Amino acid sequence: MSDTSHDLAAACAASLAALAEMAPRVHCLTSPVAMPLTANLLLAVGTRPSMTRSDEQLGEFIAVSGALSVNLGMLDETRRRAIDAALSAAAEHGVPWVLDPVKVNVSNTRRDYALELLDRRPAVVRGNAREIAALAGGDDPALLARAVGCTVAATSAEDIVSDGERRATLDGGSPLLDRTVACGCALSALVAAFLTVDRDPFAAATQALLAMKIAGERAARAARGPGSLPAALLDELYALDAARLRREEH
Amino acid sequence: MSDTSHDLAAACAASLAALAEMAPRVHCLTSPVAMPLTANLLLAVGTRPSMTRSDEQLGEFIAVSGALSVNLGMLDETRRRAIDAALSAAAEHGVPWVLDPVKVNVSNTRRDYALELLDRRPAVVRGNAREIAALAGGDDPALLARAVGCTVAATSAEDIVSDGERRATLDGGSPLLDRTVACGCALSALVAAFLTVDRDPFAAATQALLAMKIAGERAARAARGPGSLPAALLDELYALDAARLRREEH
Amino acid sequence: MSDTSHDLAAACAASLAALAEMAPRVHCLTSPVAMPLTANLLLAVGTRPSMTRSDEQLGEFIAVSGALSVNLGMLDETRRRAIDAALSAAAEHGVPWVLDPVKVNVSNTRRDYALELLDRRPAVVRGNAREIAALAGGDDPALLARAVGCTVAATSAEDIVSDGERRATLDGGSPLLDRTVACGCALSALVAAFLTVDRDPFAAATQALLAMKIAGERAARAARGPGSLPAALLDELYALDAARLRREEH
Repeated sequence: MSDTSHDLAAACAASLAALAEMAPRVHCLTSPVAMPLTANLLLAVGTRPSMTRSDEQLGEFIAVSGALSVNLGMLDETRRRAIDAALSAAAEHGVPWVLDPVKVNVSNTRRDYALELLDRRPAVVRGNAREIAALAGGDDPALLARAVGCTVAATSAEDIVSDGERRATLDGGSPLLDRTVACGCALSALVAAFLTVDRDPFAAATQALLAMKIAGERAARAARGPGSLPAALLDELYALDAARLRREEH
Repeated sequence: MSDTSHDLAAACAASLAALAEMAPRVHCLTSPVAMPLTANLLLAVGTRPSMTRSDEQLGEFIAVSGALSVNLGMLDETRRRAIDAALSAAAEHGVPWVLDPVKVNVSNTRRDYALELLDRRPAVVRGNAREIAALAGGDDPALLARAVGCTVAATSAEDIVSDGERRATLDGGSPLLDRTVACGCALSALVAAFLTVDRDPFAAATQALLAMKIAGERAARAARGPGSLPAALLDELYALDAARLRREEH
Repeated sequence: MSDTSHDLAAACAASLAALAEMAPRVHCLTSPVAMPLTANLLLAVGTRPSMTRSDEQLGEFIAVSGALSVNLGMLDETRRRAIDAALSAAAEHGVPWVLDPVKVNVSNTRRDYALELLDRRPAVVRGNAREIAALAGGDDPALLARAVGCTVAATSAEDIVSDGERRATLDGGSPLLDRTVACGCALSALVAAFLTVDRDPFAAATQALLAMKIAGERAARAARGPGSLPAALLDELYALDAARLRREEH
């Protein structure tokens, strides 16, 4: 293990311990298909999820949240209105937010909307490599990070995190995660969770990705297939600590 | 085991047997994040769940339902309209209903709406201790039960059920249930299920809470963490019978 | 094993191999309660699910989909608009579609809407025996198949598939599938998945039903109850191949 990866594992373990201690609220605006796994993943690491999308209540929930996750899966008018209200409340209360530009590589309508949202200063953009490329206009996440002035995390067999200056790469994980719905969406919410305890977006994103890589690897070994994977993933995230992070890091 | 708890376990087992025999329909208006677990829990005890929220079809479904569960998680305009239509149909057809005042301790908007709903005569209000306190204006569920004229179930490490005169307390269960989304929401639907076979709301609520405590305890022992808990909980509820209730009661 | 069933198992295995190879997109318009299992089942057999219901994006998604599944569970105005837009796009792009007429035996409003949809030329109608009877006006699925000019699959302890001329019956499966929400909904999406690789609707439907029967039987043997069934079902579908289909066919 390199010194860098050792430091990252230690920082990740410290953030996980802080989450369990502080139990911060994390608000998520996401698609119905992603809601159960996203909420369960946030609960597994000790945070309190909420998912309200009603204008009238969003301000009340965002005001007591440590971070916000905005996911474009199944984007519709209702979600657009909720996103607008939530981002206004987040700006007012200084709540950092994560953008997950789901399938912007399939829908131009959605890509255009995601590009508009980048003006509202996300702390982190987390997507798969194809989605990030559709926004960045090229394969290097650093391009998008510099253009927007935020941290960009492009996940794939090898994850890349960039804030325009710093760069981290993480390998490992399991392809079985791609055979279970909403693992990427839930990962974006996990990035938001880490933002509540480490206000450096590059550090928070990298730690969250490491936690997912290691929990995902361990879960894939324990699971019999994609059906038993989500339960194993949540069990592993719940039990993830310094010892397990150290043993698995590579 | 006290005589009281022995009687409660016997009544719970009788209700579970009646549910399996009669397969009543239970209609639920709940949040998307809670829908899968709620429907699966209702199916596990032998009832037939439905979740339609369209005005035009609500009357048709409520007319053939034995009980209705109304949950305020992710409350929005669509749900408010559905709740209004459903409560009118429930009143018309004499269908008892359960209110789950989700997170009324976080949102004043939602609390005010829940207080309005209390005028429409729920048979049972089931929430966690903080939610019930936010409605009751104090820690004792009996206050709310007397003010509204209904049964109130406040769940926590120790559950308290009151109809203003009678009072039951149940301990046990598992804190791991709090690390899995929608266990409380699904419990409220379970109270509605028990109302279809025991029309005394205090008895139905107490039996449902006992079933959840015992199934939850057994599931927590079988599970490796919060990820594997929901499947274990449903398996335990499916298999719960007089023998298991007796062996576990304390 | 008869020659017919041997041929069916071989065709099913060939379709599963083609799905894994081609990874076609399958678009689903379904109820929130059915979304997680439906998406996970489509991922388990190697297809790429999408569930967008926004008018503006539906055309973009349908244009790159191999098939469409339309499910009437929790039907509301939003879904009706989405169905209308999706069926227009499907007709434009020559995308075959499956109708799942959920609970048309409970709601006349919904039955009337389903009858209207039959004019828009589904490739397959897949429902349980009671739902098909409510549309067909009688117990024989061939009646509906001939009236509409499509394939009709009525699932129950014994599944019946008819295109008005050909008829297949399949037994096996497990009653435990009825104690888990959305297994029928997910099966309809699986029929759509098979349509992407076998354009004969009768053949595609029969193969999909066989896959579900065999995976369901194997899963029911592995599961401890309805809670652990869905994970086992997905694991079995993921692993289903010619050898397993042959060994189980009867």
